Amino acid sequence: MKLKDIGERKLTYKITSRFSIPFDDCYFLPIDGEYLLLTTDMVRKTTHFPKDATPYHIGWYSIAVNISDVVAKGGEPFAYLVALGLPKEMDEKALDEILNGMENCIKLYGGKIIGGDTKEASEITIAITAIGKAKKREVLSREGAKAGEAVFVTGNLGKGGIALLKNDLDKLLLIKPKIKEARWLAKNKIATACMDLSDGLASSLYQLSKINGIGFRIFADFLPIDEEANLELALYYGGDYELLFTAPKEEKENIEKKINAKMIGEVIDEKKITLIKDGKEYKIENKGYEHFKST
Amino acid sequence: MKLKDIGERKLTYKITSRFSIPFDDCYFLPIDGEYLLLTTDMVRKTTHFPKDATPYHIGWYSIAVNISDVVAKGGEPFAYLVALGLPKEMDEKALDEILNGMENCIKLYGGKIIGGDTKEASEITIAITAIGKAKKREVLSREGAKAGEAVFVTGNLGKGGIALLKNDLDKLLLIKPKIKEARWLAKNKIATACMDLSDGLASSLYQLSKINGIGFRIFADFLPIDEEANLELALYYGGDYELLFTAPKEEKENIEKKINAKMIGEVIDEKKITLIKDGKEYKIENKGYEHFKST
Repeated sequence: MKLKDIGERKLTYKITSRFSIPFDDCYFLPIDGEYLLLTTDMVRKTTHFPKDATPYHIGWYSIAVNISDVVAKGGEPFAYLVALGLPKEMDEKALDEILNGMENCIKLYGGKIIGGDTKEASEITIAITAIGKAKKREVLSREGAKAGEAVFVTGNLGKGGIALLKNDLDKLLLIKPKIKEARWLAKNKIATACMDLSDGLASSLYQLSKINGIGFRIFADFLPIDEEANLELALYYGGDYELLFTAPKEEKENIEKKINAKMIGEVIDEKKITLIKDGKEYKIENKGYEHFKST
Repeated sequence: MKLKDIGERKLTYKITSRFSIPFDDCYFLPIDGEYLLLTTDMVRKTTHFPKDATPYHIGWYSIAVNISDVVAKGGEPFAYLVALGLPKEMDEKALDEILNGMENCIKLYGGKIIGGDTKEASEITIAITAIGKAKKREVLSREGAKAGEAVFVTGNLGKGGIALLKNDLDKLLLIKPKIKEARWLAKNKIATACMDLSDGLASSLYQLSKINGIGFRIFADFLPIDEEANLELALYYGGDYELLFTAPKEEKENIEKKINAKMIGEVIDEKKITLIKDGKEYKIENKGYEHFKST
């Protein structure tokens, strides 16, 4: 069977099962009474970026998606390893712009580049490893959501989708992972489960459902949809890099007062995920952007 | 200016200077009274492998080059992050073979895969991050060679070159970093400077010369050249993955008795690198395989 017939999520599952890797974006390495958070993400010009994306966009984005994984665990990034695959016909100025993008993103979130590798490639291919730390009692996990709790998102949804449709590449690619919100949730031990929304709301809800053996009832009226976007984009389009988290219902007021987050629904016993809209209940599909399946 | 006019080594120098990254294969992160060693290397089918290389070869090699970087610091690898870029037309069986290669190499050296990323790519592209540890007092560094010391290599030289010429892909790609020898040198605090020979002997001598402000006088008769290889391959062809290290001359006997290593010359004050052959002194050129400059 070819990889395109398997798809990214099944492939990831196959590999993580084989090596007993925790099915998560970050590995927690216990060290010095803290956790070291380790994560890697690879981006490639053709498959990850609209054709007008600049080297600066690519540099920023390649670092930011890794930061997002550390941040969603309640961690603070402090070091990056950068493996660069670059075309030999590329101009030195383009490389400078990639590095500018990385540097400016790192300035915003902290840390420094501690090493890397530079190799020839047919097109820009960047694999970053981000290293962060988090106190053991402050870590955020994907596991822990319980029926009866509420589910929240930070910021607005559908921003990524509308930015792609309008070719607004700054909005689409200069993403800003929600470190302030995640650190607040982690320090105050409020979130019971948390992840970033890189794959889209629907897909992320299904991932939390699988890990926690629960389901969700989402209320359409509660969804903080970007003013230019719509329900379809908010549910199924990835690239928002907001946080999705669960917490006890009694924390709703506190959360919505302290950080830019809104309750969007509730955690239910049954492993199904539905949307309540105009008084009717609809099934939310398990779909979103997936590598290898793109055509 | 285009990257191909700059070349890999100048590019690496440019990037490491800009971000004040230590010019080394591994970063030393002080933790728990030890060092965590962090390194990343990217490999890509077209630029790194002969066309007959199998997925198994690629998997093994991608892990082994990273292990070599950790080992050359006196460290023991214990964890790996694996970012895989794979063609969507690739067969699942080929992926299994890549993973078999990785797994068998890891079995030999220890550790486990703790995370990764799987993305679409036009050809097999693998970026591994290896994480190792070493006791602070046992670490091997590229810095520390002093005039008057001796310089050594482990194993034989030119193996990589002859394996490439004969298309012996098992010998070329199923490389076995010298962990036993490196650990012995580290534990006994015998080597004053150490690095792996991935870029070839000449190129590696020039790197040590630059870092330490010293030169080398190499004796052709002392070079442990592979029986099928020759002087040219031994000096200028990379891919041997042996250790190159310096140590006080009085350690020669001890070293050559305890590990598979031979003295090949001496460290001199002057920053020049020469070969003594048939009583004459020749300049060793600063050349070896370099990415971006391949044509």
